[in-house]
Amino acid sequence: MTDVAPGAWAANLTPLNGDLSIDLEAYIAHVRWLLDRGCAGIVALGTTGEANSFSVDERLQVIEALAKATVPPARVIVGTGCCAAPDTVTLTRAVLDAGFSTVLMLPPFYYKGVSEDGLFRAYAQVIEAINDPRLRVFVYDIPQQTGHKMSLTFLRRLYTAFKGTIVGVKNSSGDWGAMEAACRDLPGFKVFAGTEQFLLPILRAGGPGCISATANVTSRSLAEIVAAWKSDRADALQDAATKTRLTLQKYPAIPALKEIMAAATGHAQWRRLRPPLTSLDADAAAKLLDDARAAAVLQAVAAE
Amino acid sequence: MTDVAPGAWAANLTPLNGDLSIDLEAYIAHVRWLLDRGCAGIVALGTTGEANSFSVDERLQVIEALAKATVPPARVIVGTGCCAAPDTVTLTRAVLDAGFSTVLMLPPFYYKGVSEDGLFRAYAQVIEAINDPRLRVFVYDIPQQTGHKMSLTFLRRLYTAFKGTIVGVKNSSGDWGAMEAACRDLPGFKVFAGTEQFLLPILRAGGPGCISATANVTSRSLAEIVAAWKSDRADALQDAATKTRLTLQKYPAIPALKEIMAAATGHAQWRRLRPPLTSLDADAAAKLLDDARAAAVLQAVAAE
Repeated sequence: MTDVAPGAWAANLTPLNGDLSIDLEAYIAHVRWLLDRGCAGIVALGTTGEANSFSVDERLQVIEALAKATVPPARVIVGTGCCAAPDTVTLTRAVLDAGFSTVLMLPPFYYKGVSEDGLFRAYAQVIEAINDPRLRVFVYDIPQQTGHKMSLTFLRRLYTAFKGTIVGVKNSSGDWGAMEAACRDLPGFKVFAGTEQFLLPILRAGGPGCISATANVTSRSLAEIVAAWKSDRADALQDAATKTRLTLQKYPAIPALKEIMAAATGHAQWRRLRPPLTSLDADAAAKLLDDARAAAVLQAVAAE
Repeated sequence: MTDVAPGAWAANLTPLNGDLSIDLEAYIAHVRWLLDRGCAGIVALGTTGEANSFSVDERLQVIEALAKATVPPARVIVGTGCCAAPDTVTLTRAVLDAGFSTVLMLPPFYYKGVSEDGLFRAYAQVIEAINDPRLRVFVYDIPQQTGHKMSLTFLRRLYTAFKGTIVGVKNSSGDWGAMEAACRDLPGFKVFAGTEQFLLPILRAGGPGCISATANVTSRSLAEIVAAWKSDRADALQDAATKTRLTLQKYPAIPALKEIMAAATGHAQWRRLRPPLTSLDADAAAKLLDDARAAAVLQAVAAE
């Protein structure tokens, strides 16, 4: 239905209350802030958003809050993939009912060593159960969390079987060759890189852009790359963004990004995480903030 | 509250209807059949039971059905660990409300590379939220699915912090050294081996027994080991059981066990699996059944 906006997307963080429930007000404020400062869109309830640490009911509250906030559908993708197909169906239907159309769908991730045929059937059963022409699905290829590496053959099979519904992939494997091959060999299939390290390369390869965790704190500079990608400044901007990304990814992503948000905004509650994730210890936090200052990230977040 | 019965436990399979919903009648019949033919108890909603492929509501139906069937609490452990703490709390409370007391609790398994402190907090938050002296928790150590290896230090910390509630571990890592060390170094801590390959060794090391997937089809012979474990027949019985186990585990466990149940009972519906799991193809199934016949497993199941 809705085509997603090309550019740099943030997989947005989820701010928490003292009892570790979702602070929906702060959540929507963070989403607006990201959309106002250069993000093409936000992916709610992704890995960075700690989605799998929340029950289906808690995730439904987020979807409802996004709908009430009237965030434009072209700028929203919602993570809906669970281990249990009925949960994936419930969440995906809720996304459509809320007026959005695009989801990022993890495959079931408990069992390992399953066949691509099994993964295909996992996606097929959900899409067939929903059976709604409005639905747009990005497959979520993140083998470090799921244990499943998705081949080009597998993506082609899904894309061919569910033309118009399966629209692309978010590739968080770090495997540039796979991203490039999918752009080249699957015309029309949208390949989001899972890191801004490949933002310029994926735009040049014909992809829509990146979906990134670090975009929570670096969206302005990523928006600059997107705006200038055909200019001769593009490579220098990309080099700077890559350098920042490589610096920040020395730390556990979600705790580090929440630490930066806490330090830059002065709101200590940004540090809260659902177990098994834990905050950085004092030494790591100090080192991260030094690095984030040296990369001008902290100042950029604090300034806005 | 209830001490679990020592011996060989089956992590029971979950039979499915044509729409892949749980066939509760067949489920309870299978549980009764296992308990009647030598299983010390059954672990419902474990890895073998495809628990994570079912929604919380579907799992609650299984817990309710077990309660209605008045299966003795000493012979039931229910898997309740989910990625989202609220789900783990809901299921664990339901187990207690149903008159059972013992759960097998997976740690949250989406995020990898998390600290043992994070895993500790994940267990702590659930136990503290439930805050019920009836609760008995077995920690589920199955790194091949979760990505988390649980150290002796970690188990000791949990056991010490929640004395009387954390009662033991199911170790499905295959690491015999870790099982032996936990038996030796944590007095009173119950170590279930995750395979009957270590049934006799774990009994000799002071453990309560094993919880096994293959016990769905081999419970009689495992019960013989438990009955005779102090006799001079024990090693020969164990050798035979190990040989059978090693034969069967050449195949993907859940599809293979469902295939054996289908072939032995003549009920083809036993073959149904939720994606991403898939049935064995015809060649693999034929080979498995030949192996199961040669090991006298098929005949033993069919005879009862």
